[in-house]
Amino acid sequence: MKALAKMQLTQLKGLFSEEQISQNASDLAAHARDESAHEESPPDVIVYVQSADDVSKLLKFCNKHGIPVTPWGAGTSLEANPVAIHGGVSLDLSKMNQIIDLRPEDLQVTVQPGIVLQELNKRLSKHGLFFPPDPGAPCTIGGMVGNNAAGIQAVKYGPTKNYVIKLEVVLANGDIITCGSNAMRTSSAYNLLHLFVGSEGTLGVFTEITLKLAGIPPEVSAATASFPDLSKATSTVVELVQSGLSPAALEIMDPVTVRDINAFKGLKLPEVPTLFLEFRGNGPEVTEDVRVSQEICMSNGCKDYRVAMGREERDKLWEARHHSYYASAAANPGMRAIVVDVAVPISKFPEMVEHARRVLADKRLNGPILGHAGDGNFHVAIFYKDEPKEKSKAHEVNDSIVFRALELGGTATGEHGVGIGKIHFMETEHGKSYKLMKQIKDLLDPKGILNPGKIFH
Amino acid sequence: MKALAKMQLTQLKGLFSEEQISQNASDLAAHARDESAHEESPPDVIVYVQSADDVSKLLKFCNKHGIPVTPWGAGTSLEANPVAIHGGVSLDLSKMNQIIDLRPEDLQVTVQPGIVLQELNKRLSKHGLFFPPDPGAPCTIGGMVGNNAAGIQAVKYGPTKNYVIKLEVVLANGDIITCGSNAMRTSSAYNLLHLFVGSEGTLGVFTEITLKLAGIPPEVSAATASFPDLSKATSTVVELVQSGLSPAALEIMDPVTVRDINAFKGLKLPEVPTLFLEFRGNGPEVTEDVRVSQEICMSNGCKDYRVAMGREERDKLWEARHHSYYASAAANPGMRAIVVDVAVPISKFPEMVEHARRVLADKRLNGPILGHAGDGNFHVAIFYKDEPKEKSKAHEVNDSIVFRALELGGTATGEHGVGIGKIHFMETEHGKSYKLMKQIKDLLDPKGILNPGKIFH
Repeated sequence: MKALAKMQLTQLKGLFSEEQISQNASDLAAHARDESAHEESPPDVIVYVQSADDVSKLLKFCNKHGIPVTPWGAGTSLEANPVAIHGGVSLDLSKMNQIIDLRPEDLQVTVQPGIVLQELNKRLSKHGLFFPPDPGAPCTIGGMVGNNAAGIQAVKYGPTKNYVIKLEVVLANGDIITCGSNAMRTSSAYNLLHLFVGSEGTLGVFTEITLKLAGIPPEVSAATASFPDLSKATSTVVELVQSGLSPAALEIMDPVTVRDINAFKGLKLPEVPTLFLEFRGNGPEVTEDVRVSQEICMSNGCKDYRVAMGREERDKLWEARHHSYYASAAANPGMRAIVVDVAVPISKFPEMVEHARRVLADKRLNGPILGHAGDGNFHVAIFYKDEPKEKSKAHEVNDSIVFRALELGGTATGEHGVGIGKIHFMETEHGKSYKLMKQIKDLLDPKGILNPGKIFH
Repeated sequence: MKALAKMQLTQLKGLFSEEQISQNASDLAAHARDESAHEESPPDVIVYVQSADDVSKLLKFCNKHGIPVTPWGAGTSLEANPVAIHGGVSLDLSKMNQIIDLRPEDLQVTVQPGIVLQELNKRLSKHGLFFPPDPGAPCTIGGMVGNNAAGIQAVKYGPTKNYVIKLEVVLANGDIITCGSNAMRTSSAYNLLHLFVGSEGTLGVFTEITLKLAGIPPEVSAATASFPDLSKATSTVVELVQSGLSPAALEIMDPVTVRDINAFKGLKLPEVPTLFLEFRGNGPEVTEDVRVSQEICMSNGCKDYRVAMGREERDKLWEARHHSYYASAAANPGMRAIVVDVAVPISKFPEMVEHARRVLADKRLNGPILGHAGDGNFHVAIFYKDEPKEKSKAHEVNDSIVFRALELGGTATGEHGVGIGKIHFMETEHGKSYKLMKQIKDLLDPKGILNPGKIFH
C-alpha cells in the first residue's frame, strides 16, 4: 500500500476547503498515536470531514488511487486502532460532533460519529436518559461503535453493540448505505449492522449513528469490598455473578492498582484486593441487591464492606478507577506498557487472574491487574523498560496470558479491539472463521484502503 | 435451481444410512409447509442428519451438484422459512436435539440445533436458569437462531441474538467453522456470529449453539388492564415504556382477539382492548413496578387493572396469548391468513395500530390485532376467503400496513423473518444495503444451494 504522492495531495486539496486539510506538524503528531504505547506513525495528511458527502468524496478519491484512509475519532483507543500505520489520510471525524435528532419519546438518539460520550450523556440527562457503555475515556461515539466498546457498566447494560440500532456507513467505493431500523426489534434479512460494529474502520466509515437509550434509574448505590487475598476476591466475583444479581458495575483491583490510584488521586483506600460494586434500579430493588451482595462478600472472607457512599465520594472512586491506567503509568515513569484485555467465562476468572500473576512474577515484571470482573474481562498493564530484552519479556507475558485465555474458551480482546497488537492471536482464536472475515473484508474493500494493517496483516 | 435427479438421489442414499433418508409421502407432506398459510411445497427428499459431519457431507454433495438444501427444525415458522420451495433436500435437524454441555457455573449451555425450546427450559430450570426468548411455539433452538426469534419476554430480555455467543456453522462448501467466544464480552475482529443469526438458513447450517442464560428471577407478577378503547391502550403502552419500567411482557390484544381466545380457551376476559403485563425481579422490585404500572394504566383511563394472579391463572393467560393465532384461525374456519409482523418506534405504535384498523375496515376484512406492544411489534392475522379477489384485498391490506411501518422508521418483520412473504419489502426497507446482503450471500454460497428463494428472489 503506497502513501500519498505529491500530485495526489494537490488533487485532494482541490476537493476540500483549505481549513479541512492539515499537514501541520503538531496536528500530524497528534494523529500519530493513540493512548497506547504502540509506535508512533503520523499520517501524510489529515482531512477534517464535515458530512457524509465529504467522506464519500474522500473515499472515492482514495479508492481510485489506492491511498490508505484511517478513521480518527478522539484517539483514546489502546491498540493503535485509529493510527495510520501505512501513512495516507487520517480521516478526522471530530468536527462531525452534533446530535442530529434526539427522540426521548422513543428512547433513541441519532448522532454524528464525532460527538464525545460525556457530552452526549450530559445532553441526554436532561431527559432522564443515558447511553450506558462507558470505557472511561473521553472517546467519541464513532470510536465506541468501531471498537464495540464496553467499560464498567456493561456487566448490567451490555456493550455498545447492544445499543446501536441503525448506521449510515460510507463504503470504500464511496457508496453511502444505511443498515438497521428504528424499530426496537427486527428480523429483517442480514444483520449488517453488527458486522460494522467492532470492525475498527476496516469495512466502512460511520457518518450517522442511531442509539437506543436507557432510562436513568432512580437509585444508585456503590460499595467497596476489601479482601485479604486476590483469590478470595475473584471467587467472590464468581459467586456474585452466579447468584443472578445484576450489578451495574463489578470491578476488581489488585493491591498494586489500589496503591497507584491512591498515590495518583490522593485517596486512602486500603491497599488490598478490592471490589468496586454499583447497583442501579428502583429504590427497594437496590436496597435488596446491596444486602444480598454484602452477604455474599462477607461469607467469602471480605474484611471491610463499605456501602451507601454519597454521590461525591462515589464519583471520586469511579474517576480513580477510570484513571487507573494513567495512575499506574505515573507510578512507572519512563516505561512502556502492553495492555492485556482478555475475557474468559466467569468460572475461569480466578484461574486466569492467578495465571497472570504467576507469569508476571516469573518474569519479574510489574503488572497491575484490574478489570471488569463481572464480565470475566480484565486488564494488566505490563510495564517494561524500553529495551529489547525487557520488551521481549513483556511480550512473552502477554502471549502467555492471551493464549491461556483462549485455551479457557475466552477472547484475546474483551473491549479494546484487535488493532495491531492482537493480530497474531486471531488465527488461534477464530480458526477458519478468520479466513471468512478476510473474504468479507476483500468484498467490501477490494483495494484494501480502509485502515490497512488492522485486524489483518 | 434444479431439483434432485434420480441418479443423484441414488448417490445421496449411498452417503447415509437407510433410516436417515425419507421419501415417505406423509413425511414429505409434513415438510411441505410451516404454520403459515403459504402454499405447500414438498422437498424431493428428507435427510435426517445426526452430526456436523453429516451436514458437511450433505452440503458438499449438494454444492457439487447444485441441489437446493433447506434446513428444517420444527416447522413452526410463519413465512415458509424452512419450506423447500425449489424442492431438493429438506435437511432435518430434529434428531440433533441434545444438550452437549450445560455449564450453570458460567450461565451457559451448548446445544444441538434440534432441541425444542420448552424441553431446554425444563432442563435449565433445575439450575435456576432459563433462555428468555419465547415465541410461544414448540420451536427448535436452531430455528430460533435462524430467525432471531423474540416473543413476549424480549421487551425485557431482548431477542435471541442477545443470547447467542458461539456457533458451529457448516458452510455451503461443507467447511465447518466456529464463530464467537465463550467469554461474555468480546471485541475480537468481525462479528460473524450475528451475521449468521437471523440468516434463515441461507448462509450456513448451525450444528452447535452456545447460549448465555439468565437466572430465573425470584418473583413474578402478572396483570391485565382493560381499556374502553384501543387508542387509550396503545397510548398507555407508550407511557409505560417511556417511564423506564422494564416489564417482562407488555402485550396488547384488541377485542376481536380477546373474543377469539375466550371462545378457544373457555376464558371470560372482558372483550375490550386489553394489556397483558408481567414483572420479574426481586420481591421489592416487582411490588414497586406493579404499583407504578397500575398508576400509569389508571391515569390513562384503564377501567379494570387486575394483579397478583396465582401461577395457575397466569399460566392459563399466557397459554391463551400464545395460542391466539390458532384461536383466531378456529374462529375463521376455512379461511387463509396473512400474518403481519411489523415493528415501529414506540411513539408511532398508536398511529400504526390505528392505520391497521382503518385499512382493515376499508377492505371489510377481519384482522385480529395483537402484539408485543412494549417493543412496538404487532401482528394482524388478515383472514381471507381463498379466492383471487379476496386474496388480493388481503395483500393490499398487508402491503399498506408494512409500507406505512417502513415510512415510520419501522421494519417489515419484527420476529418472523423474511422467508418468502416479506421479500418484496426488502428493497424499500434496506435500500443499497440489500444489494450488499446479496453480495455476502453470493460470497458464502456461490451456487445458491442454501434455502434458495428465501430473503432474496
